[in-house]
Amino acid sequence: MSQRIPIVDADIHERAQYEDLLAYLDEPFRSYIKDCNWIQEKHMPYVQPTVAGLDRADAVLPDGSPAGSNLHFMQEQLLDDIGHEIGILTGALDPSPSSMHGWYEMAAALATAYNDWQIENWLEKDERIYGSVHVAAQDRDAAIKEIERVGNHPKMLQVMLPMDDIMWGDPYYHPVFEAAEKHDLIIGMHHNEPPVYYGKWPRYFIEWHSMISTTHMKQVTNMIFNGVFEKYPNLGVMMIEGGFTFVPHLMWKLDQQYRDLRNEVPWVKEKPSNIMKKHFRFTTQPAEELTKKEFMSIIEQMGTDEMLCFSTDYPHFDYDSPTRSLPNLDSDLKEKLFYKNARAFYPKLSNR
Amino acid sequence: MSQRIPIVDADIHERAQYEDLLAYLDEPFRSYIKDCNWIQEKHMPYVQPTVAGLDRADAVLPDGSPAGSNLHFMQEQLLDDIGHEIGILTGALDPSPSSMHGWYEMAAALATAYNDWQIENWLEKDERIYGSVHVAAQDRDAAIKEIERVGNHPKMLQVMLPMDDIMWGDPYYHPVFEAAEKHDLIIGMHHNEPPVYYGKWPRYFIEWHSMISTTHMKQVTNMIFNGVFEKYPNLGVMMIEGGFTFVPHLMWKLDQQYRDLRNEVPWVKEKPSNIMKKHFRFTTQPAEELTKKEFMSIIEQMGTDEMLCFSTDYPHFDYDSPTRSLPNLDSDLKEKLFYKNARAFYPKLSNR
Repeated sequence: MSQRIPIVDADIHERAQYEDLLAYLDEPFRSYIKDCNWIQEKHMPYVQPTVAGLDRADAVLPDGSPAGSNLHFMQEQLLDDIGHEIGILTGALDPSPSSMHGWYEMAAALATAYNDWQIENWLEKDERIYGSVHVAAQDRDAAIKEIERVGNHPKMLQVMLPMDDIMWGDPYYHPVFEAAEKHDLIIGMHHNEPPVYYGKWPRYFIEWHSMISTTHMKQVTNMIFNGVFEKYPNLGVMMIEGGFTFVPHLMWKLDQQYRDLRNEVPWVKEKPSNIMKKHFRFTTQPAEELTKKEFMSIIEQMGTDEMLCFSTDYPHFDYDSPTRSLPNLDSDLKEKLFYKNARAFYPKLSNR
Repeated sequence: MSQRIPIVDADIHERAQYEDLLAYLDEPFRSYIKDCNWIQEKHMPYVQPTVAGLDRADAVLPDGSPAGSNLHFMQEQLLDDIGHEIGILTGALDPSPSSMHGWYEMAAALATAYNDWQIENWLEKDERIYGSVHVAAQDRDAAIKEIERVGNHPKMLQVMLPMDDIMWGDPYYHPVFEAAEKHDLIIGMHHNEPPVYYGKWPRYFIEWHSMISTTHMKQVTNMIFNGVFEKYPNLGVMMIEGGFTFVPHLMWKLDQQYRDLRNEVPWVKEKPSNIMKKHFRFTTQPAEELTKKEFMSIIEQMGTDEMLCFSTDYPHFDYDSPTRSLPNLDSDLKEKLFYKNARAFYPKLSNR
């Protein structure tokens, strides 16, 4: 075990069941769930890839509870087994509160309950586990209040924003970024239902799942050209679970377009690829099967080895093992991917 | 001039004005345009990048007629100047007939008139000029009739399908592919209004324009997983004006997903990257500014130098010059990019 390098895992999906949240929910929202069996809107039309839905079947608990819902099971199956130094929880309340299309007060109450549940049952129970502030950002001001409320928790590393039908670069949402920056939090972005196409689902899960990277590309582009990083020069964004092999294309493309069309967005003061290098990190999962040569060609095309951060995506079906999902890279690069890049990027980890 | 290599230009936008089409339009559609000043729906909310809109200002005719609307001007500015061997017209009737959201009969009548105008005024006036069959594919059966009507013209190389709110892999549209294949035509795909996001435009043209590649990625993915190429093993698709640096990512991603999830789409019999290599070509424009090393790394990642075909996109503002848009590549590769790949891919050019 002593030869293992530390692992900072930027994407672990712990899961709350509704009954877990009841004790943390205010009335009347508690009763709507407890007595009326209300559940959040869900849309995905597909049969999902495993008998556990999107999860690894072996991560489901012996009593049938969903994968990711139990600390001890996760400790045993993931943290102890792999030897994580740090695991960053990114949540799984279906869907994210920020994705609810109505009743924003319920969404905000759920986010609050979720954060309290997360702090009490995870962040304060295992020193390796860090967390994410969940918000209902469609109600921007409620989201800011929630960030003010729990954002100073020493183990809260980021504010989660889902990729759904909102493009987060819209100036209406900038105060959310301001609040995050103020509390030494970054933004964690993770797709939820997109990529749907014109609001319609593609016919197959494999299509939908293949195109997740396109949604990541759109949000990065949107945030850059809407001037988020000129307004919040210390803000970081972790793009979670979209992979990374699209990054060279995106850097070249945005630089090209910036050269041609920057007059339209005079508030963008730098080449987009430089903004990306400073302000964005991309988690490695789901890592495509690359040879070392292919992997290194991506690093070379990006012009930096500091943009990628390892993640497992536990307990999802396409979990990436730290020993098997990437080619056998040189030690310096491995250290950056597996812990140095993430430690440097999350303000609250950067003093470690 | 003799040292120039032949150039096959896979994307030239000739433009019809409505008055050009009147002579080719049947009643009552002719009168709706002539007497009622009907025009097609247009949505793009942005000021566009040049004083000529999306066009090169120097391609506008001296009398103010739009860029691309006059054969002699195009001959002089493009074909003679560059020394094109072949220029393939892809059209510009705003928007494509296949993008009209209602009154499909008018859309089909416009497509028919456009094709007749194109044949008489372009294809039969210059031996270098080849063309595209325009259809209103939202009325599938009307589209098939139009392909039957003009698809055998020796200079018609492809059927144009716009990328809009239809995902063309949907089995409803497969008979269009069948008709194309039967007439030795390929499909030419070109974005129209996407990438809009959930049906909404991003705030800025630069965002919209940067993300065109994501729409190309979605259509390729959709066609592959909907089994188009198992049904039509000789069908080719030219992805036009989306660039190419996203292609390695897409190949890796689709192969990865196919390994994980192919049980969902058992009709897909081959690795998606192999399907792409056989059935798809990508035009080079708008080529990002790549060094030779970067360009070659993309070729290496794709595993083939036969997937890219040069295009200028004349007369659009981001026109690519054959001498200045690509790095100084070795002769073999240049020959493939500039003419061999395209000649081999269009059935009607492959005997040349």
